[in-house]
Amino acid sequence: VGEFSLIQRYFERPAKSRQDKHTALSIGDDAAVVRVPHNHQLVLTIDTLVEGRHFPVATDPRCIAYKSLAVNVSDLAAMAATPAWFLLSLTLPDVDDDFLSRFSAGLFEAADEFGIHLIGGDTCKGPLSISIQATGYVPMNGYITRANARIGDRIFVSGNIGTAALGLAVIEGKLEIDSELKKLSVQALNQPRPRIDMIPLLRQFASAAIDLSDGLIGDLQHILEQSGVGATLDQSRLPVLDIIREQDLYPLALNGGDDYQILFTVRESEVEAVAKFSVTENIDITEIGVICETGYTMQTSSELIDLSQQRGFDHFVEG
Amino acid sequence: VGEFSLIQRYFERPAKSRQDKHTALSIGDDAAVVRVPHNHQLVLTIDTLVEGRHFPVATDPRCIAYKSLAVNVSDLAAMAATPAWFLLSLTLPDVDDDFLSRFSAGLFEAADEFGIHLIGGDTCKGPLSISIQATGYVPMNGYITRANARIGDRIFVSGNIGTAALGLAVIEGKLEIDSELKKLSVQALNQPRPRIDMIPLLRQFASAAIDLSDGLIGDLQHILEQSGVGATLDQSRLPVLDIIREQDLYPLALNGGDDYQILFTVRESEVEAVAKFSVTENIDITEIGVICETGYTMQTSSELIDLSQQRGFDHFVEG
Repeated sequence: VGEFSLIQRYFERPAKSRQDKHTALSIGDDAAVVRVPHNHQLVLTIDTLVEGRHFPVATDPRCIAYKSLAVNVSDLAAMAATPAWFLLSLTLPDVDDDFLSRFSAGLFEAADEFGIHLIGGDTCKGPLSISIQATGYVPMNGYITRANARIGDRIFVSGNIGTAALGLAVIEGKLEIDSELKKLSVQALNQPRPRIDMIPLLRQFASAAIDLSDGLIGDLQHILEQSGVGATLDQSRLPVLDIIREQDLYPLALNGGDDYQILFTVRESEVEAVAKFSVTENIDITEIGVICETGYTMQTSSELIDLSQQRGFDHFVEG
Repeated sequence: VGEFSLIQRYFERPAKSRQDKHTALSIGDDAAVVRVPHNHQLVLTIDTLVEGRHFPVATDPRCIAYKSLAVNVSDLAAMAATPAWFLLSLTLPDVDDDFLSRFSAGLFEAADEFGIHLIGGDTCKGPLSISIQATGYVPMNGYITRANARIGDRIFVSGNIGTAALGLAVIEGKLEIDSELKKLSVQALNQPRPRIDMIPLLRQFASAAIDLSDGLIGDLQHILEQSGVGATLDQSRLPVLDIIREQDLYPLALNGGDDYQILFTVRESEVEAVAKFSVTENIDITEIGVICETGYTMQTSSELIDLSQQRGFDHFVEG
């Protein structure tokens, strides 16, 4: 089975489902051709997931595929960009039908859920890794960067944090928890749901945003550095599972990666409006801190911790 | 050294050189933001190069980087798309300053030569591989596919073919040639020049086009299959080095990959015009055959060979 039949067999979908009205040419030529809606800018991101580093060896191929797409779509969501198209470059040690059928099932499950279309890619032989490049669009100048947080802005985060890191700790045998919670946390690790539901809220209210891939402390630090400001977090407000609060497992929420929630800032004058919007639209966001002039600290029940020397998860250094 | 400092140290260029007028946001956020020129379509491609498969172990990192970008730009050229932006996902076994400084030098040498801008990417740890996603644009519906060759169209190819395969044969010790020719052929293998100079010619004259990455026979077959036609090639017309002709090394030109020339078809009525254009614009193209209703053959000095069962180089099967 050669490259071309591989792509055809597992990644070509019936014309109807794989095309959207903006796609002129999909899989099967030198490149794909799409049309960007008028008065929009294009938002592009790429991420590679390597076996043994971004997912454990022997992870279900459905989950590998799902997560590979999810982390890219999460980057688009953090820019407030609507997901549109993606390219897949799949490196495989060998042609394994079982792997490929499960992988493509997970990929299309994710693609359908996120509303993004596979338009091309390549396959090659080598150690298992998955590169996905995702493209979305925003109304002209409607994207949200990391660089625009201001003193007085409130810091918000979507969903729960630390849940994926809890799942990893369980898989690695570092922690024992009940089976219901185990299922939930491993699911969060293996099938993160990028917060595309946050896009309208971000466009309307966010001054800066980033997705949480490397842990709260490190990812917030990117916003602080690029905006030239400081921050104070309130530990008691962090949206974490009861087990993290009760057993004081806060490092999972602060340094654990892979949550793929959105961390964002909102001007003080907009705080009431964003709270109202989140209730009306049923979007789970929590205010966790405030942007200040300098310093990077967190208030716990007993002390003020300096966060400025702590690091987030770095895919090159740890893992 | 973490991922972020790696990207900053080796891949961030001074703002002036890395920005073009269409780039709103480059390296350093969740994603890049660009603007597509009005009334144009977007053309997107991705290719991964794996050590030991697409380039020999211990290849000069400058050449690895140059080639990784060149093969993607070649795909854009084959669609008649103007190169604009690219993303890099670099997987490295370790942080090696010498490797990275040579790699980034080769990457920017190629980027400047091809007129394409690095706008983002990621790095991670793992077996050496390079994924590049390149984006270009074409005037609305100005792209050239593989699917539009018609009976009577003439088949053309740019430049020389088989030169890269000659270089590979020399490196692998299968062939001995004089040092001047060795230098030239190894250069063709390691630093292929994508034919962006062909873009205006293709837009004006090509009915179908593909870039030669897997060898003439296999790549032409894609055009034939997708256009639903056959072809006859004339071996005596193939633009090859004297050594290939004199020593009857035609398999290098027919099955050897990595030439990154453009293979294209032209309506019979346009053949004179394209010949004139190529002289005026000083573009080296050669007519090598004709599209017919069925069959896939090549006329040599002594016989008519059936090419339909021969295969091109397949990165998954061979190599």
